Amino acid sequence: MDVVEYIQANKAQFFADLKEWLAIPSISGDPAHHDDVRRSADWLAEYLRGQGFPTVEVWPTAGLPAVYAEWPAADPDAPSVLVYGHHDVQPVTPLEEWDTDPFTPVEQGDQLVARGTSDDKGQVFFHTLGLRANLAANGTDAPPVTIKLLVEGEEESGSVHFAELLTERRERLAADAVIISDTTMWSADVPSMCTGMRGLAEAEITLRGAEVDLHSGSFGGAVPNALHAMVELLGKLHDADGRVTVPGFYDDVVPLTDEERELFARLPFDEAGWLETAGNSRAAYGEAGFTTLERIWARPTAEINGLWGGHTGPGGKTIVPREAHAKLSFRLVAGQEPAKVRDAFVAWVEANAPAGVEVEVRTPGGGVRPCFSPIDSAGVAAARRAMEKAFGKEVLFTREGGSGPEADLADILEAPLVFVAVGLNDDRIHAPNEKVEMPLLLKGAEAAAYLWDELATALR
Amino acid sequence: MDVVEYIQANKAQFFADLKEWLAIPSISGDPAHHDDVRRSADWLAEYLRGQGFPTVEVWPTAGLPAVYAEWPAADPDAPSVLVYGHHDVQPVTPLEEWDTDPFTPVEQGDQLVARGTSDDKGQVFFHTLGLRANLAANGTDAPPVTIKLLVEGEEESGSVHFAELLTERRERLAADAVIISDTTMWSADVPSMCTGMRGLAEAEITLRGAEVDLHSGSFGGAVPNALHAMVELLGKLHDADGRVTVPGFYDDVVPLTDEERELFARLPFDEAGWLETAGNSRAAYGEAGFTTLERIWARPTAEINGLWGGHTGPGGKTIVPREAHAKLSFRLVAGQEPAKVRDAFVAWVEANAPAGVEVEVRTPGGGVRPCFSPIDSAGVAAARRAMEKAFGKEVLFTREGGSGPEADLADILEAPLVFVAVGLNDDRIHAPNEKVEMPLLLKGAEAAAYLWDELATALR
Ligand SMILES: [Zn+2]
Ligand SMILES: [Zn+2]
Repeated sequence: MDVVEYIQANKAQFFADLKEWLAIPSISGDPAHHDDVRRSADWLAEYLRGQGFPTVEVWPTAGLPAVYAEWPAADPDAPSVLVYGHHDVQPVTPLEEWDTDPFTPVEQGDQLVARGTSDDKGQVFFHTLGLRANLAANGTDAPPVTIKLLVEGEEESGSVHFAELLTERRERLAADAVIISDTTMWSADVPSMCTGMRGLAEAEITLRGAEVDLHSGSFGGAVPNALHAMVELLGKLHDADGRVTVPGFYDDVVPLTDEERELFARLPFDEAGWLETAGNSRAAYGEAGFTTLERIWARPTAEINGLWGGHTGPGGKTIVPREAHAKLSFRLVAGQEPAKVRDAFVAWVEANAPAGVEVEVRTPGGGVRPCFSPIDSAGVAAARRAMEKAFGKEVLFTREGGSGPEADLADILEAPLVFVAVGLNDDRIHAPNEKVEMPLLLKGAEAAAYLWDELATALR
Repeated sequence: MDVVEYIQANKAQFFADLKEWLAIPSISGDPAHHDDVRRSADWLAEYLRGQGFPTVEVWPTAGLPAVYAEWPAADPDAPSVLVYGHHDVQPVTPLEEWDTDPFTPVEQGDQLVARGTSDDKGQVFFHTLGLRANLAANGTDAPPVTIKLLVEGEEESGSVHFAELLTERRERLAADAVIISDTTMWSADVPSMCTGMRGLAEAEITLRGAEVDLHSGSFGGAVPNALHAMVELLGKLHDADGRVTVPGFYDDVVPLTDEERELFARLPFDEAGWLETAGNSRAAYGEAGFTTLERIWARPTAEINGLWGGHTGPGGKTIVPREAHAKLSFRLVAGQEPAKVRDAFVAWVEANAPAGVEVEVRTPGGGVRPCFSPIDSAGVAAARRAMEKAFGKEVLFTREGGSGPEADLADILEAPLVFVAVGLNDDRIHAPNEKVEMPLLLKGAEAAAYLWDELATALR
């Protein structure tokens, strides 16, 4: 029995089991549902035992529990692979916008509708079917790589205890690659894999002129105005080409390869439609020489998130404001270190702040390191072959602009990330009427079945 | 009996009368004292009648009353002069910081301490003594010019009904010059006259990018950021020389004459001390090629009074903010029209706003026209001669940065302003322990006595 035959033979049971799990309202952001999150963990643990995992444990945290399962390879020298997903879900408000009950999964044509179908229970679940298909096709009772499955319970509430969990359990979680199944493909017709997520660094600037707001009639035009200083300073943060002017800002950036740019360019990107999703932004705008997709996926940014000073209430107030404040953040890409970017920015502010104002720059938080797996790295190439075999067509590449627990997985476990996911951007995750395309979940299972054989060779 | 003899002979009675008026707590900003403001008007009217003014009227307004008195010249062709002052006073909080009761005037050496001694009852009052000294010295019972005295009751609460009063009473208030006795001299040793006050125009800018704040991970670097647009725009408002870049902004400015600059430069200006009064500003700063005094008195400004957008609360929020707002005001000098400056600024914003943002510029309020009397104008020159005769030394010139009801007087009555005042910057007006230098009030009376003869010739 080959992989596809096994999946076809078992898909009815697969969806029946998934529906049982989806019925548990494991909303980690709502304390009233924390017992449900625990129940979800227990249900999954029991299910994984039933699927044959030799080791299944529920791991408590200071918050909500994760589930860990391990199925060792027959060959003790085989590589280890960690699969990451989460079993908690987003809240379901506003409930009145749901056409059906969010925790009563219903099939509508090819779609399965319920909270968590795409993000992320459905995508965790295809791995169970995929692994069993792999075993069936290979006629063995142990996979070609040691599989470690880690299913978090706090992803939708900020993964607040996840780094701690990874650090504590680092030995047992050790792996040659981490498979992330919590993202999306470009579209049902255009299968793709994510290869990186931007990181983050943050800074706050305060400029101070006088000790008090001054009357602009008496003093205006003859003393520094903190807001003038701030607009003069931050007006220089980008050059005419939209490039960040902080010295060294781009030094460590891993450049896009010609192949990546060419593959990005083959994605059928509808810029007008994208601008609509961007709050009806009036125009694309950014660093010269890069496309919109390159800008949001592979180029670092310096963004003013907030700025304030002086009189911000109704009416006018003719003051020379004493202080100006700005909050900034930097999206970082492959190669950049948050600490280095912060230091460069602090130096830039100190070198460029206009005369006559006191300068204070703070850089709160440790930041988030970007994560990135080159398209020609062993894990990504292997997963691409598995995906292409399942989908029967070329698999393209994307990246993502933000990042969640992925950076912690890469940093703490020091393993390359490989994103294998079959969600779609129109799955309405975090929104009413979340759905998953059932045929895509089965393609995910198929890709996962092939993946372990590919990785057994590629990671050895 | 000459002017000085008359003043010496009558000074005791003068101060006794003034103290009686000062005892009335005519705080226009405190409704609990509005009856006192009315009592102050009645007291003054009665006093002026006693001093011999043929016409004395209390003029009601929609708020608090003004006092009007008129003493016609013997010669029906003589010029008319309007003297402006106010009989209301500032609040006295914090009361615990007063060494003596604010409404129980006490003499301390040469100083008379009470609320209103300098601002402005004392300075209104010296005109009564001055006028009687003039009559005594000339041996007549009518002054050489028709004197119209207008003493407002709402100056310390914004002169809200003053423009209306001036408009309604325009015919009766018609004058060839307006004497303002509500300002200060440079110092007791350096008598001076103010020759102008800056005007005001205001504007608000809103720049809009997307319709909502966007997630900077998903969209940052690829759509316009309204705050970037704002700092880029306002960063261009001044050039490297601190000059406002709005085209035409300086076109109508009446330039400082060499004589004015030379006279300003002779004022013993202590810049370090001035910076201390400017909230310990770190350095003088402004338009290249001008001194600090020239900048605050005779040069127009564009000042950002407030600016805000995006996340301004605690912590970070990685958004691309959808809107940015700024409030600006312009201090205007001789020759500039608020409406023209506003129009030029609107055009500048529209021409310079970065691509990709929607621009809205509002120009609330009608603004305040600057007022200015050239130092060689007839009225100023005559008043300077009177002041120099009283003080026995050269009188220099200043200007003031802000403006109150003076612009209304100049605009509505269409008469040149002449500032004759003997207050000092250390009189603690609007603060606890307000005082006036009694010898200076007598010098003011002496200057006023000479002034009418000077103006009778100069304005004819
Ligand atoms: Zn998720
Ligand atoms: Zn005053």
